[in-house]
Amino acid sequence: MTGTTTAPTLPGQARELFRSGVSCPTSGWAPGHTQTNLIAVPRDWAYDVLLFCQRNPKPCPVLDVGDVGTTGTPLAPGTDIRTDLPRYRVWRDGEVVDEPTDATPYWRDDLVAFHIGCSFTFESALVETGIPLRHVEQGANVSMYVTRRACRPAGRLSGPMVVSMRPIPAEMVAAAVAISGRMPAVHGAPVHVGDPGSLLLGSLERPEYGDPVALHDGDVPVFWACGVTPQAALAASRVPFAITHAPGHMLITDRRDQDYVLGNDVAGGVAG
Amino acid sequence: MTGTTTAPTLPGQARELFRSGVSCPTSGWAPGHTQTNLIAVPRDWAYDVLLFCQRNPKPCPVLDVGDVGTTGTPLAPGTDIRTDLPRYRVWRDGEVVDEPTDATPYWRDDLVAFHIGCSFTFESALVETGIPLRHVEQGANVSMYVTRRACRPAGRLSGPMVVSMRPIPAEMVAAAVAISGRMPAVHGAPVHVGDPGSLLLGSLERPEYGDPVALHDGDVPVFWACGVTPQAALAASRVPFAITHAPGHMLITDRRDQDYVLGNDVAGGVAG
Repeated sequence: MTGTTTAPTLPGQARELFRSGVSCPTSGWAPGHTQTNLIAVPRDWAYDVLLFCQRNPKPCPVLDVGDVGTTGTPLAPGTDIRTDLPRYRVWRDGEVVDEPTDATPYWRDDLVAFHIGCSFTFESALVETGIPLRHVEQGANVSMYVTRRACRPAGRLSGPMVVSMRPIPAEMVAAAVAISGRMPAVHGAPVHVGDPGSLLLGSLERPEYGDPVALHDGDVPVFWACGVTPQAALAASRVPFAITHAPGHMLITDRRDQDYVLGNDVAGGVAG
Repeated sequence: MTGTTTAPTLPGQARELFRSGVSCPTSGWAPGHTQTNLIAVPRDWAYDVLLFCQRNPKPCPVLDVGDVGTTGTPLAPGTDIRTDLPRYRVWRDGEVVDEPTDATPYWRDDLVAFHIGCSFTFESALVETGIPLRHVEQGANVSMYVTRRACRPAGRLSGPMVVSMRPIPAEMVAAAVAISGRMPAVHGAPVHVGDPGSLLLGSLERPEYGDPVALHDGDVPVFWACGVTPQAALAASRVPFAITHAPGHMLITDRRDQDYVLGNDVAGGVAG
């Protein structure tokens, strides 16, 4: 249904649409509200995931961790994380075995859900400053890439860092760095600006996740650490079972982007 | 030996002195170098501790977590965390059973060590701005207090937030807030300024940890979240076994305070 639904302005409305089966990337939805990556793993793997996030805070800033078996989160009171994202991925032994819009049939009582900051969260602030979002203009999902940079391993988990890319007009790159840098809980400043060849495993034209996005003349590709990184670790480490969001198809929370701006209360640490 | 040893300027020298048996609070030692709280728990409790830290990032900003049984840390290459702090506490069932200067006899191969940011780290920046440190002037350990504020529980762990207190001249409070607020990985901005009665469980004159510190005329008591908080949780939750630093007797790392100033690389998240 990409592009056929008018994006609502309230997070609860968005979640209700997704619960009813609407499925599309969430960039630009409910502007001003924080979006999060989901990764749910069996209890036996929870420590490795949490430690992996602690050791790789740029790609994996943890905003909330649920108790074992919990399907809600204080980030979005009343939500059911099994149904309220637009699309999921179900993983077995490091492979995606299904991409449903409802994860309920796959849910297990021993799952622990991690909610990780998403760079869509600072997109509103970029737009307000006059910085264009090419993927939104082009009706596409953001481009995401596997990089040559290894994450710091944690227990049985290892894998490469994944990044999202936004083409930014050269004269606006510094502003984009400053604005995103004030929000470390949603990946913060870019990890790489320009020169894709020294960062990416593949090519700029063929993102491993999301859609290709065209650069305009004068645009520079700017790369932010991405919350899809844990999914690359699931694959690289052949984790027996997991449920995640589908890349670009996030949980839209009730939290305000402003809550994660440095100096505001929730941003006192990575978590809220 | 409090006050009898001239504090060295290099972290390695400080650790060597402590290894040889010197024992005193570390405030003011090796200025410009990051100090950390230690809590080591059996593997079985590591997830609860890490989740407790994630849910309470103001008092428990995690700078490093060791692998099971590891006695080193990348924060201070070459260090042995069993010997290189000036004093330890050994805990059984939530009670302190010993306070040795060498934790080696108590070490176990199943321990996981957590290194948590310490507010001593921003003291150099306060001093450079001309803000006096009354506890250093008075040759005392910083005052630390149990508060009425409960931490968010995690698994089997719960307990109150602990704070450190520094008397700050009223006209310098705003500067102290701003300077510490730029360093969230070492507790960041204060959690409470003035009016101790609404925060503390006990009285300003009788800190539960450290020493009483006298306020000068015109000083306001300013309270920062404190890395002793996990120790209060050990006690409240009757954790079967743990080794921690003694309050105020920190690990002095090789990291630079500047590494934890927002916008610098290591401060991209809470961890380095």
